[in-house]
Amino acid sequence: MELLDKLNWRYAAKAMNGKKVAEDKVERILEAARLAPTSSGLQPFEIIVVKNQDIKEQIRPVAWNQSMITDCSHLLVFAAWDTYTEDRINYMFDLTNEIRGFKNEGWENYRKMLLDSYPQKDEEENFNHAAKQAYIAFSQAIAAAAFEEVDATPIEGFDPAAVDKILGLREKGLRSAVLLPLGYRNESEDWLVNLVKVRKPMKDLVTVIE
Amino acid sequence: MELLDKLNWRYAAKAMNGKKVAEDKVERILEAARLAPTSSGLQPFEIIVVKNQDIKEQIRPVAWNQSMITDCSHLLVFAAWDTYTEDRINYMFDLTNEIRGFKNEGWENYRKMLLDSYPQKDEEENFNHAAKQAYIAFSQAIAAAAFEEVDATPIEGFDPAAVDKILGLREKGLRSAVLLPLGYRNESEDWLVNLVKVRKPMKDLVTVIE
Repeated sequence: MELLDKLNWRYAAKAMNGKKVAEDKVERILEAARLAPTSSGLQPFEIIVVKNQDIKEQIRPVAWNQSMITDCSHLLVFAAWDTYTEDRINYMFDLTNEIRGFKNEGWENYRKMLLDSYPQKDEEENFNHAAKQAYIAFSQAIAAAAFEEVDATPIEGFDPAAVDKILGLREKGLRSAVLLPLGYRNESEDWLVNLVKVRKPMKDLVTVIE
Repeated sequence: MELLDKLNWRYAAKAMNGKKVAEDKVERILEAARLAPTSSGLQPFEIIVVKNQDIKEQIRPVAWNQSMITDCSHLLVFAAWDTYTEDRINYMFDLTNEIRGFKNEGWENYRKMLLDSYPQKDEEENFNHAAKQAYIAFSQAIAAAAFEEVDATPIEGFDPAAVDKILGLREKGLRSAVLLPLGYRNESEDWLVNLVKVRKPMKDLVTVIE
């Protein structure tokens, strides 16, 4: 399967060389994230694409000074909804009706069920749920980058509150969940580039109930 | 990009026909999950593959009675670590040293840093973190299923405590995070099969900072 070849090719580059990724490649990587499935189809996140070098320089010190932040081409910030609101839920249900061109009673009942539950829940619980959906898209973006032969380094090591402040995310009802610099590996500077990929053997990962 | 074709092909089948998925296809889907990147490479989850029909029948009522649970071929249960422990962290660092054939001071310092932080954190926080890593693998499995032309329906609508009990997960230090039935769509019973895929337009998903 071609996907497995790509997943074997990819790794988390620990140094990048500053070379720019072509915009059409970035668009396809974002499209994979956009197509990712999410709970109730709500897509409860946004993606901030940082190309501005000054902003990358501001983020680097609050991300353990990791060089990929500034040496990448495009820094993707997956930012999840801080909570589920009526407006946000209605947006997706209205969009669905508009695209499909009809209203459906079952679907409207489902909308009502979500409106009666999510907005009343604890905000932190809602953010955690939204962040998981962002991770589904983040993962598809990682796979898509591999298809484009673009290096992509998943980064959780950063101060979310600081990144939120730099990007003005809280004012938009968003909170940064995970970062994905896109770029090209700097082979001579990257300690990881020639090391064997390590994964748990299947026997320690999977249990089959026959 | 072939990945985009596959992601456009896939959808969350709402009815399955009971047809079995070939084992080599399931193996490749699990391999994609195994290859998924995770925070510090810890792979803090396991995957339970339920083929047993009685167990599927037990899970269905605690999963909103969704028919895919029993009409799928293989029900994948992504179960995250209930917390990070010293043993679990050491397992992955030891495995890395064994596979790569050497010890490295930087890597050992990193092990120590994780040992000094994760096990002391709140269990719920650790589980949430582990569950996000499981979602990365879950997402790769969804993409891999599409490459195999196997239907896969992401399911969050279930009672995790009840599923944990049925599968005896808590005793193993695991908690169910998300379900993924694999199988084949039942076109005549599935209300979703012929509907247009709905996703937010790129302008509502992505903000570029030039």
